[in-house]
Amino acid sequence: MAVVDLDAAIAVHRDTYGMPLVHRETIAEQGVEAALLDVGDSHVELLAPLSGDTPIGRFLAKHGPGLHHVAYRVDDIAAVLDDLRAAGLRLIDDAPRAGIRGSQVAFLHPSSFGGVLTELVQPAAVHA
Amino acid sequence: MAVVDLDAAIAVHRDTYGMPLVHRETIAEQGVEAALLDVGDSHVELLAPLSGDTPIGRFLAKHGPGLHHVAYRVDDIAAVLDDLRAAGLRLIDDAPRAGIRGSQVAFLHPSSFGGVLTELVQPAAVHA
Repeated sequence: MAVVDLDAAIAVHRDTYGMPLVHRETIAEQGVEAALLDVGDSHVELLAPLSGDTPIGRFLAKHGPGLHHVAYRVDDIAAVLDDLRAAGLRLIDDAPRAGIRGSQVAFLHPSSFGGVLTELVQPAAVHA
Repeated sequence: MAVVDLDAAIAVHRDTYGMPLVHRETIAEQGVEAALLDVGDSHVELLAPLSGDTPIGRFLAKHGPGLHHVAYRVDDIAAVLDDLRAAGLRLIDDAPRAGIRGSQVAFLHPSSFGGVLTELVQPAAVHA
């Protein structure tokens, strides 16, 4: 979820919904400060831009706060990317790159995935 | 996720992602045909409009296909709605109404929930 005020968004999810806050990290190369909250075996990820000239900053300027992308956990991100590419689907990231909490991530292009910006996440081994 | 072509969207999620299709239902009062696919202990819900003059039809006309709302499972939806109302948060549905698979559902207003259209779902007892 793209948010303007990370602390306020954390307060809604942690205090109103009761979701445990499990991680908070500034990811300079993606231009965001991010927070992860547990819900079942999934996470809500809150993303606040470090400046307006970042992907999340531009999303907020265009759409306002709201749902930004969905992420699915995979065991072997390189193999999944190979399979998707072999199926002729359009990727944003041809190879995995560093994500939150030591994960490897890759984004898939909405045009091949029903208009939904989709992320694959291979957690760091300690979180697997 | 709001989609134009339910069969095509099911194909991406079931065949490309490998998510089991667990339910498909036309919900006339909400103007949608919906499909549920399992991912972990969560679901992806695909929503295709029965006509243009429905909430999902209007969403598609304005935004195109993509993420529409997020839903959280609760044990006692009436109690949760009471708590949220008592906290001064804005609801769309003051009382639960019928949802997919015999569930009770209620929508919360994006203005009180970080710009995100949010649904509470109390599954039917058989699915609890």
